[in-house]
Amino acid sequence: MTSLAVAVIGAGYWGPNLARNFHANDQWRLAAICDLDLERAQALAARYNGARASSSIDEVLADPAIDAVAIATPARTHHGIALAALAAGKHVVVEKPIADSSERAREMVDAARTAGLVLMTDHTYCYTPAVLKIRELIEAGELGDILFVDSVRVNLGLVQPDVDVFWDLAPHDLSIIDFVLPGGLVPQSAAATGGDPLGAGKACVGYLALPLADGAVAHVHVNWLSPTKIRQMIIGGSRRTLVWDDLNPQQRLSVYDRGVDLQTQALDRIERATATVSYRLGDTWAPALTEREALDAMVSEFAAAIHGGRAPRTDGDAGLRVLAVLEAASRSLASGGGAVPIVDAIQLTGELA
Amino acid sequence: MTSLAVAVIGAGYWGPNLARNFHANDQWRLAAICDLDLERAQALAARYNGARASSSIDEVLADPAIDAVAIATPARTHHGIALAALAAGKHVVVEKPIADSSERAREMVDAARTAGLVLMTDHTYCYTPAVLKIRELIEAGELGDILFVDSVRVNLGLVQPDVDVFWDLAPHDLSIIDFVLPGGLVPQSAAATGGDPLGAGKACVGYLALPLADGAVAHVHVNWLSPTKIRQMIIGGSRRTLVWDDLNPQQRLSVYDRGVDLQTQALDRIERATATVSYRLGDTWAPALTEREALDAMVSEFAAAIHGGRAPRTDGDAGLRVLAVLEAASRSLASGGGAVPIVDAIQLTGELA
Amino acid sequence: MTSLAVAVIGAGYWGPNLARNFHANDQWRLAAICDLDLERAQALAARYNGARASSSIDEVLADPAIDAVAIATPARTHHGIALAALAAGKHVVVEKPIADSSERAREMVDAARTAGLVLMTDHTYCYTPAVLKIRELIEAGELGDILFVDSVRVNLGLVQPDVDVFWDLAPHDLSIIDFVLPGGLVPQSAAATGGDPLGAGKACVGYLALPLADGAVAHVHVNWLSPTKIRQMIIGGSRRTLVWDDLNPQQRLSVYDRGVDLQTQALDRIERATATVSYRLGDTWAPALTEREALDAMVSEFAAAIHGGRAPRTDGDAGLRVLAVLEAASRSLASGGGAVPIVDAIQLTGELA
Amino acid sequence: MTSLAVAVIGAGYWGPNLARNFHANDQWRLAAICDLDLERAQALAARYNGARASSSIDEVLADPAIDAVAIATPARTHHGIALAALAAGKHVVVEKPIADSSERAREMVDAARTAGLVLMTDHTYCYTPAVLKIRELIEAGELGDILFVDSVRVNLGLVQPDVDVFWDLAPHDLSIIDFVLPGGLVPQSAAATGGDPLGAGKACVGYLALPLADGAVAHVHVNWLSPTKIRQMIIGGSRRTLVWDDLNPQQRLSVYDRGVDLQTQALDRIERATATVSYRLGDTWAPALTEREALDAMVSEFAAAIHGGRAPRTDGDAGLRVLAVLEAASRSLASGGGAVPIVDAIQLTGELA
Repeated sequence: MTSLAVAVIGAGYWGPNLARNFHANDQWRLAAICDLDLERAQALAARYNGARASSSIDEVLADPAIDAVAIATPARTHHGIALAALAAGKHVVVEKPIADSSERAREMVDAARTAGLVLMTDHTYCYTPAVLKIRELIEAGELGDILFVDSVRVNLGLVQPDVDVFWDLAPHDLSIIDFVLPGGLVPQSAAATGGDPLGAGKACVGYLALPLADGAVAHVHVNWLSPTKIRQMIIGGSRRTLVWDDLNPQQRLSVYDRGVDLQTQALDRIERATATVSYRLGDTWAPALTEREALDAMVSEFAAAIHGGRAPRTDGDAGLRVLAVLEAASRSLASGGGAVPIVDAIQLTGELA
Repeated sequence: MTSLAVAVIGAGYWGPNLARNFHANDQWRLAAICDLDLERAQALAARYNGARASSSIDEVLADPAIDAVAIATPARTHHGIALAALAAGKHVVVEKPIADSSERAREMVDAARTAGLVLMTDHTYCYTPAVLKIRELIEAGELGDILFVDSVRVNLGLVQPDVDVFWDLAPHDLSIIDFVLPGGLVPQSAAATGGDPLGAGKACVGYLALPLADGAVAHVHVNWLSPTKIRQMIIGGSRRTLVWDDLNPQQRLSVYDRGVDLQTQALDRIERATATVSYRLGDTWAPALTEREALDAMVSEFAAAIHGGRAPRTDGDAGLRVLAVLEAASRSLASGGGAVPIVDAIQLTGELA
Repeated sequence: MTSLAVAVIGAGYWGPNLARNFHANDQWRLAAICDLDLERAQALAARYNGARASSSIDEVLADPAIDAVAIATPARTHHGIALAALAAGKHVVVEKPIADSSERAREMVDAARTAGLVLMTDHTYCYTPAVLKIRELIEAGELGDILFVDSVRVNLGLVQPDVDVFWDLAPHDLSIIDFVLPGGLVPQSAAATGGDPLGAGKACVGYLALPLADGAVAHVHVNWLSPTKIRQMIIGGSRRTLVWDDLNPQQRLSVYDRGVDLQTQALDRIERATATVSYRLGDTWAPALTEREALDAMVSEFAAAIHGGRAPRTDGDAGLRVLAVLEAASRSLASGGGAVPIVDAIQLTGELA
Repeated sequence: MTSLAVAVIGAGYWGPNLARNFHANDQWRLAAICDLDLERAQALAARYNGARASSSIDEVLADPAIDAVAIATPARTHHGIALAALAAGKHVVVEKPIADSSERAREMVDAARTAGLVLMTDHTYCYTPAVLKIRELIEAGELGDILFVDSVRVNLGLVQPDVDVFWDLAPHDLSIIDFVLPGGLVPQSAAATGGDPLGAGKACVGYLALPLADGAVAHVHVNWLSPTKIRQMIIGGSRRTLVWDDLNPQQRLSVYDRGVDLQTQALDRIERATATVSYRLGDTWAPALTEREALDAMVSEFAAAIHGGRAPRTDGDAGLRVLAVLEAASRSLASGGGAVPIVDAIQLTGELA
C-alpha cells in the first residue's frame, strides 16, 4: 500500500505536532506545510525531508499529488478551508472545534458526504491508550448498558480571555464520552450551571448535566479554580463499572465487577437492614495499557478510513455532536440554568438513523 | 452548673445513640426513654441508671423535672411532638429532617422563637472534628470569600424504598454546607438532574446545582450506583482552598495556599503563554484533628445553647434551610431539570436579616 | 455434628474476644470462663447463657465435659497451662507468643503430638479475609514460586516498657509470612538491625532480613516512630506479584500479572536500551474479599482440626517457627547485626520432613 | 562576573545533558566537547555556538582558556582524566560514581585539595527541588536531630549485566542521604542482604542497613522485581518527620509535626492504656516546590564553588563517602550479610574533623 500525501495547514501551536506525527507514520508522506506566515511554514518544513512550504492554500489544494489536508488554523477559518479542500477532492482532518457554529459544521459534514470524502475531527484524546481501551471494553459488552457517565476535570487553570471554562475544558470530556458511548453522545437536553465568583465575566466553574436515553445521565464538572487536580471519569454499566483516573499512572483504569441488582431490590422493599445485602460484589480488574502517542494512532485511523472508504472513528458527525452540546450549554447558561433541547443533535440523530 | 434532664423520644434506630451520649455527658442527666413500644423503651432504659421508661409522650412532657426532649421518631411525627414539647416548655432537639415539609418546619421554628426555647436540628455530621475545623477556618477568614463548594458523596448504596438519592444522601452535604458557610446555605435557586437508569422509579444518580450570591456556586453529586466510594468536598476561597477527603484518615483536610489571581489576569489578556504564570502557588497544610464522637459534641452544644440562651449552631432555621433546598430539588426534578427558586429560604433570610 | 465444649482461661484483654466468638459460633459451646480473679471470670461468664465461672484451672481441666481450652493468660504461663491441659486430654489453642521460649514451645508441640491432641496458635491476623485469600492464591499457584516477601508495619506507636519493636510488631508479619509461604517461614538465617535514637534502651526502629531457600528473601520493617502509617506487604512471585495494602479498604489486594523474564534477559546482555523492553507487562487484578471477623474463622478452624484429626492451619509448629525467628532476631541484635542461624527452626524442619 | 569556560569530556549518554545545561546557564560558556569518537563530539558541538569538538583530552587540557572540565566517561576512566585535569589546573566535576574504587577516589580528593581546585561529584538528584528543600529544612533545624532515614526505591527494573541492584539503584538513595544529613552519611557499619531468586548471578533485591551515631539508623531497600513502583523516603527527626513520596506530584513532601515524646513515656511505664496518649500530635505541612531542572542547579553550584573558593555541596568527599558505603555493602554481601565496618569513611571523617 503506497503512502498518502498530506499537507498540514497552519504551522502555529498544533500544526508542528501534526507534522511530526504524519512524518513519522509509515502510512503517510508529509508533502507540504502551509501557513500565511511563509517563514513559519519554512521553518517547520525544513525539519522534514520532502516537505515543501507554501503560504497559499489555493496552491496547495491545486496540487493533484496531495491526497489530504490537516487543518490546524483558528476555528473560525475551519469552515472555509474545509469546504475548499473538499471541493478540491481532498480528504480532511480538522482540529477541534470542528467549526465555530453547528450550522457551519453541518455544512461541512454534508459536503463531505456528498463528495464521498473523509471528514475527520481531531479529537486527539480519544486516541490515548486509556480511551481506546474504554471504547473496546464497552463495545465488547464488558460494562453492559451504560447507566451513567460522570466526568471531572478540575485544576488551577488560566482564566481564558476568549472562552469560558465550558468551551476551554469540556470539549475533552464531551469528545471522549461521544467516542465511548455506542451511538455517540446524543443527550436529550443540556442543563448548565456556571459560577463566576471572581467577576471574570465568564464561567470559571461549570457543571453540565446531560440526560441520556432510558434514564441514563452524563455529567461534566469543569473548574479552573481548584488547586487540587482531578481528572476522573466514572462510567457506570449494568454489568460492570469503570473508573478512569488519569492522574494515577500505576492504575489508570479500574473495572469493578460489582453493582446494584434491582431485581433483588424490588423483592426486598421491607427493611433497610435486609436490603443492604443485595449488592453484587466482585473483583476489580485493571487492564494493562500499551504506550503509544495518541496523535500517531489518530493519523493511522485517518489513513485507514481513507483506504477503507469508511467513516473514521471521530468523524465530522462526532465533531458536530460535541459542538451542538457546547452550544446548548451556552444557551442553558444564558437562560439561567434551565434544561434546553439540543436541536441539532436530535436532527442529526434522525439523519444518521 | 447542674446538669439538665433530658428525655429521649423514640428508641428505634437512632434513639439508643442519643441515649448513650446524653448519659455519658456531664452536662446532661438521661431521665427518661419514651417509645410507643414500652418493652423497647424499657430495654434501652435498663442500660442507664436513673432513666425510666414510658410509652406516653404526654406523661413525659408533663414531668416538670424534664428540661429537654430529643426526638428520634419518624419524620412525619416531628412536627406534632415538637410543638407539644415546646408548648410544655421543653427545649427540643430533633432528628433530621426537621419535619416532613418546610411549612411545618417553619411552624416549629416560629413556635420555639415565640416560646423563647431552644430548637435544634441534629445535623450530627456537622459536629465531626473535620467539619468543626472547616467552620473554624472559614470563620477565622483563612479561606477568604467562598467562591465555590463542590461536594461528592457516591458509593454503592441501597436503592431506598421511600426516598430518592437526593433525600437519602444530600442532607449530609447540605447540612454541612449550611454549617460552614457564613450565613448558612441560602442559594438563589436549585437545579436538579436525576438519573434512573435501572428503572427504579426514582433518581439513583443525582446532581444538584445551587447558585449562591456574587457568582459563587455550590454543587452536590450523590450516587447510589458507584462501586468506587468518594466522599470529598472542595471549598474554594479567594485566599485559600480546602479539600476534605473523608476517606483519607491520614489527611482528611488539606488547605491549599494557592489560587488564581484575577488582577494579574485582567492586565494580562494578551496571550495564553504570558498569562499562565499568574497562578499564586504556595504550601499545603493539613491541620491535625482531635478525636471526639460527633454526637457528644452535639449534645454539649445543645446544653450550651440552653444555658447561654442562644441559638445552637444547628438550629431550627438550619433544618428549615436544608429542607427547603431538598424540596426545591424535587420541584426542579419534577419540572424537567430547570432552575427553580427556593421561596422558603428566601423568605427566611428576610426574616433573619 | 454436636458442638464442642470450650473453656476460656484468662478473662483479661483478649479472653473476652475469644469468649464472644466461641459463643457465637455454632460449632462451639462456651462452657466455662476461668480466671484467678473470680469476679472477673463471673462478669464475663454472666454475658453468656450456659457459661460458668471458675478460679481454678485444675477444676476446669478435671471436667470431662470440656473438650478444649483457649489460653489467654500471660505468655510465661502458657507452657504450664498447656501441658496440664494436654495431660488432661484437652485440645488447646493458645495466644501468641505460644510460649516464652522456643525450648518450652517445643515441649508443648511434642506433648500434643504424643497425646494425639490439637495444639493451635492463635495467629488471629492469619484468619482475616485478606490473608486467607493470599494463602489461597499462593496455594493455587497463582503467584508461582515465591521470590521475595517485603513487609512494612510502621506508625506512631507506643514505646513498650517490656519489649522492643521487633517483639511488639513483627509477630504479626512473621506469622502471616509463615501462614502464606508453602512450608512455612524457615529462613536460613536472620540479620536484625535496630535503631534506638531516643535512648529508650531498646530498638524502636527495626529491620529484619531473612534469606530463604533458593535465593529468595523475606524482610520485615517495623517502626514505632513513623508519623505516617504504612501496612504493606509485597509478595513477589515468578508468575505474578501481590501487593497487600491494608490501609486501602477499597483495594487491599492487588495481583500484578507482570514481572521480569530472565530467559529474555540472559540472551540480551548487550545493551541497556535493548534489554529494557524485556519486562512482561500485564493486567492488575484485585480480588473481592468477603467480610468475616477473623476470630470467628479461627475458632471454626480449631473445631475443624479437632473433628478432622488434623493439624490446624496455625498449629504449634507455626507458633514455634515464629518464636524461633524472633529469638534469632534478638541474638542478631545482641551480636551487632550479623546474620545468625535459626537453630530451632532448622531442627524443626528436619523433624517435619 | 565573566562566565567560566567548560569542556565536556564524553559525548555518550550523559554528556549531551551536561552540554545543554552548561550552554543554557549564564555563568558558563560551553567551550569544547571532547570524545574519542570525533564525529560524536562534532555532532554534539554543532548544536551550540562557540563550542568546538576535539578527540584529544590532552589538547583540551592544554587550552589555557578552559577553566573547568565535566567528565562523563566510563567510571574506570574518571581517575586518570580527573588527575590529568587537576594537574592542568582545571576545576573538575565528575559523573557518579566518582571512581571505580575508594582508594582512587581518595587520590582524586587529595589531588584537588593539594591543588586548591574544586572537585565536584555530579550527584544530580541532590539538586532536584524536593531534595534541596529537604536539606534546607534539616539545616534550619525544622526536623531536629535525625533519628532514622528509611529509603525505598523499587520497581520493575532491568537486571543489569554488569552491576547488582545495590550498585544500580542505591547510589541515588545514598547520595541523597549524604546530601541532607548534617555531616554527610558516615555510618558506623553496613549490613547488606541480597536476594537472587531468579538465579541471575547477582542480587536483584537488596536491603542495606546503616547504623548511624547515637542510635540513629539509615536503611535502603532497592528492588528490580517489584511491579509496583515506590520511591519514598521517610526522615524521622526529634522535632518533626518528613516523608518524600516522589511519585505523588501533588504532594511530594509532607512534614509531620508529631512524634513520640520519650520523657512522657519514661514516667508512664505502667500500663499500655495510659501510655498510648503520649504521642505528640500536630499538623502536617507540604511545602511548595519551585520547578527547576536539577542539572541547571548543579552547574550553578559548580560555578558558585569556583567563584567562592569553597567546596561544592556535592564535593569529592561526598562521592567518596557514597562509594565507600557501596563497597562495604559488597563486602557485607560477600561475607554472608554480617555488619562490616566502613574503614575509608571513618578515616575520612577523621581527616575532615
